[in-house]
Amino acid sequence: MSRAAFKGETFRPGTVWLVGAGPGDPGLLTLHAVSALEQADVVVYDALVGRQVLAMARKGAELHYAGKRGGKPSPSQRDISLLLVEKAKAGKRVLRLKGGDPFVFGRGGEEALTLVEHSVPFRVVPGISAGLGGLAYAGIPLTHRGINQAVAFVTGHDATGAVPDAQDWKALAQGSPVLVIYMAMKHWALIRERLLAAGRPAGEPVAFIRDATLPDQQVLETTLGNSLADLDRSALEPPAVVVVGKAVTMRAGLDWLGALGGRVLIADPLGERAERDTG
Amino acid sequence: MSRAAFKGETFRPGTVWLVGAGPGDPGLLTLHAVSALEQADVVVYDALVGRQVLAMARKGAELHYAGKRGGKPSPSQRDISLLLVEKAKAGKRVLRLKGGDPFVFGRGGEEALTLVEHSVPFRVVPGISAGLGGLAYAGIPLTHRGINQAVAFVTGHDATGAVPDAQDWKALAQGSPVLVIYMAMKHWALIRERLLAAGRPAGEPVAFIRDATLPDQQVLETTLGNSLADLDRSALEPPAVVVVGKAVTMRAGLDWLGALGGRVLIADPLGERAERDTG
Repeated sequence: MSRAAFKGETFRPGTVWLVGAGPGDPGLLTLHAVSALEQADVVVYDALVGRQVLAMARKGAELHYAGKRGGKPSPSQRDISLLLVEKAKAGKRVLRLKGGDPFVFGRGGEEALTLVEHSVPFRVVPGISAGLGGLAYAGIPLTHRGINQAVAFVTGHDATGAVPDAQDWKALAQGSPVLVIYMAMKHWALIRERLLAAGRPAGEPVAFIRDATLPDQQVLETTLGNSLADLDRSALEPPAVVVVGKAVTMRAGLDWLGALGGRVLIADPLGERAERDTG
Repeated sequence: MSRAAFKGETFRPGTVWLVGAGPGDPGLLTLHAVSALEQADVVVYDALVGRQVLAMARKGAELHYAGKRGGKPSPSQRDISLLLVEKAKAGKRVLRLKGGDPFVFGRGGEEALTLVEHSVPFRVVPGISAGLGGLAYAGIPLTHRGINQAVAFVTGHDATGAVPDAQDWKALAQGSPVLVIYMAMKHWALIRERLLAAGRPAGEPVAFIRDATLPDQQVLETTLGNSLADLDRSALEPPAVVVVGKAVTMRAGLDWLGALGGRVLIADPLGERAERDTG
């Protein structure tokens, strides 16, 4: 089997596919996602889905934008879900295309339940979440021997737009050596404060990753202590994924994208060479 | 641009690509992964990489198995890393293909550092980790409004094969409403005990997902309290991904794969219909 031989699954009229488009680089689309784009009659897409990805849609497909656009009110979750129902009931193949993964802070579950309510069959296609893809392109491993056996993904704001108070930030900060925080920039001052209050040291490395996996990807390396000042000085705008933990140090060895541009990588970023390659 | 028009990046001789093959379904390969398979001279693959995926390799490519095979000692991490170096130094395009994602409990960072040590250029291609893909195919959302604003990935055994003691399980259990545990079956009795000791209720739903995203995927739904007995009664063998948390309840509404086989989904698995679609 080769790529050309991968036929994918038949996208049946009257059904909805909830599909993750990945973090931005079209090369991170899955074969199922591409197959969905090639078959869909209707594509309902979010703000974080790029032009290069949309350009893969079947010629003649109806495109609906369902994201937030500067200033303008965004369509409500209910409106989006009902649009999916309406188009499916009209016999269309409906592709709901979301940035990253539909089930990682993507509200895919809510949309799917509305489909169930209206007896519309659906399928889920997972995608590379920004937490995975963005870190991989920044040269920061989500897990690394000697650093962590756990990693947590958390969102910096809940459905109301505030820092989630239902979340026990202290336990999270104490239980997970590496934290990947989505939508963290708006409330960064407060989140940083909570992490420090939970005992994470001011010197702990932090990275902000913007436009992850795209040609204009930006990575700001700083520390918890310096992050507010460094953010102020930088021109970095949201949205960004934020990583907190020693994993950020690994970037000195693993920034393969930087190396393509001339950065010299070091083989022993943790200073633990003797322990590294055993086992 | 269509799929056929996606040319991918040039895989340069003498370089190594560390690539995630995803959880099993070949449709979850990324375009970059397929492009790597089509160009590679040498493919070094793990036990969790399936035949359908390997079948996409360029005809004539050299295939090296680097996983564990029942009983036989597996090649050491050092040996695998040095094989990559050797083949790259010989001017080959070397594809290191790992199940899931190379940076999620995949030791991709370690292999990359050995490449840096030997001045071998590399690139990382993230993949769909079993924690994302397996849950999506089981109809269990990693995050869902009203359930969680954080999710943690943790491994059930460390490099020595024991349950990681450097990990603060209590804080992790208290800080993350949903836990996704990799390689958890061997030490499940102990992990379960730690979660209960940390205050997770015996009635909390748990799912074991085996052969995630493949046609023979199996999902065992149970509770923390009943999980040992239910596992004993089941024919489930490792490896499996384990999910702990209310998210498992969502499967009653979101098991789209089961629905294809006749399962009737319910639109309100949490009994919170009134709150669901607002906002």
